[in-house]
Amino acid sequence: MKQADLIISGATILSMDAELAVHQDHDLIVTDGKISAIEPQGKHIWQAQETLDAQHCIVMPGLINTHSHLPMSWFRGLADDLPLDIWLNHYIWPLEARLLSKSFIYDATLFGAGEMLKSGITMTNDMYFEMSAIADACIKAGLRALISEAVIEAKMGADYRPSLLVLKYKDLYQDQPLVDFSLAPHAIYTCSGDMLRRCAQAAKEHDLLIHIHLSETAAEVENCLRERGKRPVHYLNDIGLLEARCVFAHGVHIDAGEMEVLQQKPVSISICTDSNLKLASGLAPIKAYLDHGINLSLGTDSVASNNDLDLLGELSTTAKLHKALNNDPAFLPAIEALKLVTINAARALGVEDRRGSLEIGKDADFLVIDTQSLNSMPIYEPASQLVYAINSRQIRDVFVAGKQVVKEQRLVNLDEAELLQTATRYATMIKEELSK
Amino acid sequence: MKQADLIISGATILSMDAELAVHQDHDLIVTDGKISAIEPQGKHIWQAQETLDAQHCIVMPGLINTHSHLPMSWFRGLADDLPLDIWLNHYIWPLEARLLSKSFIYDATLFGAGEMLKSGITMTNDMYFEMSAIADACIKAGLRALISEAVIEAKMGADYRPSLLVLKYKDLYQDQPLVDFSLAPHAIYTCSGDMLRRCAQAAKEHDLLIHIHLSETAAEVENCLRERGKRPVHYLNDIGLLEARCVFAHGVHIDAGEMEVLQQKPVSISICTDSNLKLASGLAPIKAYLDHGINLSLGTDSVASNNDLDLLGELSTTAKLHKALNNDPAFLPAIEALKLVTINAARALGVEDRRGSLEIGKDADFLVIDTQSLNSMPIYEPASQLVYAINSRQIRDVFVAGKQVVKEQRLVNLDEAELLQTATRYATMIKEELSK
Repeated sequence: MKQADLIISGATILSMDAELAVHQDHDLIVTDGKISAIEPQGKHIWQAQETLDAQHCIVMPGLINTHSHLPMSWFRGLADDLPLDIWLNHYIWPLEARLLSKSFIYDATLFGAGEMLKSGITMTNDMYFEMSAIADACIKAGLRALISEAVIEAKMGADYRPSLLVLKYKDLYQDQPLVDFSLAPHAIYTCSGDMLRRCAQAAKEHDLLIHIHLSETAAEVENCLRERGKRPVHYLNDIGLLEARCVFAHGVHIDAGEMEVLQQKPVSISICTDSNLKLASGLAPIKAYLDHGINLSLGTDSVASNNDLDLLGELSTTAKLHKALNNDPAFLPAIEALKLVTINAARALGVEDRRGSLEIGKDADFLVIDTQSLNSMPIYEPASQLVYAINSRQIRDVFVAGKQVVKEQRLVNLDEAELLQTATRYATMIKEELSK
Repeated sequence: MKQADLIISGATILSMDAELAVHQDHDLIVTDGKISAIEPQGKHIWQAQETLDAQHCIVMPGLINTHSHLPMSWFRGLADDLPLDIWLNHYIWPLEARLLSKSFIYDATLFGAGEMLKSGITMTNDMYFEMSAIADACIKAGLRALISEAVIEAKMGADYRPSLLVLKYKDLYQDQPLVDFSLAPHAIYTCSGDMLRRCAQAAKEHDLLIHIHLSETAAEVENCLRERGKRPVHYLNDIGLLEARCVFAHGVHIDAGEMEVLQQKPVSISICTDSNLKLASGLAPIKAYLDHGINLSLGTDSVASNNDLDLLGELSTTAKLHKALNNDPAFLPAIEALKLVTINAARALGVEDRRGSLEIGKDADFLVIDTQSLNSMPIYEPASQLVYAINSRQIRDVFVAGKQVVKEQRLVNLDEAELLQTATRYATMIKEELSK
C-alpha cells in the first residue's frame, strides 16, 4: 500500500482538466499538500491517516476569484440603490479616508477571507491598501491571495515607485506559500501615463502581474476618448502595459477593435457580473471575448458593490444572463462556464501549472460539495447541477494545500462568532462616523 | 395578559405593509393562524404556549410564487444548455407523454413543495395536470397553492369545459384552506380563440383567476401577429379575457401599446427571470411595466428551466439586472423589489386582503431569517441585506397559517431523506426511459 496524507473517498470528481473529465465514484489522494492520485474507489492502493467520506458529493477545484477588495467587509449594504457618485463621494471614499488603519484592514480582511472560504474560494486576486495586513489575515484564515496595493497617484504622489513595496513584501513573505504580491495601478483615470509606464516596466523586469480596473463604465471610456483621443485598450497598448501579464477587472465596455489587440497579449479579463449589474455599469461582452480567444474569469468585486462573495452564485447568474443576451440557450454550457472560476482564473493569475484543476502534482485546493439537498436532486449532469442548482451553502468542506479550512460549513482557523461580533463593532463605529 | 398561540420574539419585522414599516426589536403575536399583534419587545402584554426567540433575525411575509409547475421536479437538470425545441421535443414532452401518472405527479409535487417551503415560499400559483394529486401533496407538505390544470386543446379536445373540473375541486377541497383552484388555458398557441373565450366567461361567472403563459418568446408574438394580425395582448383583449383577473406568466415580449391596454385591466405579470435568462427567452421590460402601473410579481417557473425554486435568489438577480438594463443603480430599490415576492404577488393571486404583508388580522404566513452569517453581516438596512446578501439557506423557520412547516432548515411535515430517495428512484427510471 502506498502512503498518503488524506483520501477523499467515493466522490464525483470534476477535474476541470484539459479533457474536462468527470470521474464517478473516485478517490482523490492527497500527499504533502498535492494531489498524488485520482483513482476508482475501492482499489485499496493507498492508505492514509485520514479518510473523508465523499459519497454523494461533488469534488471540484477550489474557486479562484480574480478581482476582490477583501478589506471592504464593513461597507456591505451600507448605502445601496444610490447613484454611483453619491455612493462613492458621500459614503465609501469619506469613510475610507477617515477610518482606514492597519487594524481596520486586518479585521475586515479576516472576515472577508472567512466568507470567501465558506463560499468555496480558495484563492483571490485582491487589490486594496496595506498589503501586509491583508497578507497576515489571509495567512491566518488559510486563504491563498495574490495581493496588490491600489496605486492612486493623487494619494501616493507622482514619484511613487510601486514595485519597491511589492518586491519588499515578496521578500518578507517568501516563506509563506499562501500569499504573493502583484502590481495594481488602480485605473487609467487615477494613474498618469508615466505611472502606468513605470508599472509596465516593473512588471516586465520582475515578472509581476498587473491588476487594474479597466473599462468598468461607459464614462471611463468616454473620458479616455476625450482626453487621449483613443479607447482605453489602445491607450494602454501605446504605453506598453499590454506586454505584461495583466488582469483587467470588469472589462464591460471594450469594443471589437480593442479585443483584436487584447487577443494577442498575455492578458485576461475578470468579469464582475453582480457588481456590474448592481452598480448599473453595464453588461460585459462575454461572447465576443470568448470568440476572440481572450481568457475570461470571474471576480466578485467587493461586498460594498456585490454584496456577497458567492462566486458560484455569480457564475450561475453569468451563465444564464449571457444565454439571454446572446439569444442562445446553448451558449456557455455549464462545464464551459465552470472554467471561468477554475482553470481560466488560474491562468489569469499565472498559476495554471499548479491550480485551477484537479490533476496529479497540482496543489490540493478543492471543495467537497454535498449534493443531497432538495434544491439539487436528482442529478443527471454534475456540472449542470453546480452551475444552475447547487447553493454555495452546500460546499461542505474546503481544502487549501491539502489542509482543511472549512469543515462541515464551519471555518477551521477562525472563530465565526468572534468575526460576527467584530462586524457589529465596526458597523456601530461606521454609523457613528456617518452621523457626525 | 392576553392569550396567544405563539410569540416570535425580538425580531426585525419587515412588514411590507402600505408604509413598508420595518419594526426593530419587535414581537409578532399569532393566534388561530392569524397575526394578532406586532409590538415592541418586552411589553409583556401577551402570553403564549410557545415563544420562539428571533433575536438577530428578520421576520418577513412568506414568499409568494406566482408561476410554477411543481410536478416537474424530476426533470431538473435533465437536459440543459440545449436549444428550446430540442429540449421540449426530445426530452420534456416525450417523457411527460410516457411517464406522467397521478403517483408521479404526487411524488414530484411533494418534493417540489418541500423545496419551496425550505426556500421560504409559503404559497404558489401552480399549473400542471392532475390537480387533485397536486393539491394532496401541497396539503401534506403544508404549502398553500392555487392550482390549475393546463388546458392544451390538442390534448383535451375542442369540447373540453375547463371550469367543470375547477368547480368540482373547489367543492371537493372546500374544507382545505391551503388549496384553491383556478383556470389555466396554457397559452394562446395551445388554445383556440373559442377555448380562451370559454375560459374568460367561466372566470367571470365563477370569479376564477386565469393563469396563462403569455409572450414568453419573440416567436410566440411573431406567430400571433402573422396568424391573427395583432399582438397577443390585443388578441386577448378582443376575446374578452382581460376582463377576468389574470396572471400572465413570463410577459417578456409585451410592447408599450399592449401595456396601455393592460394598465386598465385587473391583470398581473409574473416575471420568471431565471427561466427567461436560461432558456434565452429574453429580458422582461420591468421598468416599463412599473411605469405603466401594472402589478408585477415573480415566478420561479419549473426546475426544468430554472433550475431551483429559490425565489429570494431570483429576486436578487432581478433587482440587480434591471438596474443595469436601465442604466440606473437607483432603480428598483431593495424594499420596492421585495414587493414583487410579497404584497404584489398576493395582489396578483387575489389574496392581498389576507396575505403578502404582516398586518393584524392577516394569515400568519411568515419567515424567520437568521442574519448572523458571514455573508450578511454587518447589517445597515434589512431590506438591502435580504435582496443583495442573504442566502435563502438562512431562512431558518417557516410558518404557514401559524403552523411551523420548516424548523431550523428542516421540513416539519415531510421526511427529507425519503424525498431524496424518491428523487433518485425517479431519476433512474427517467434515465432508463431515455436510453430506450
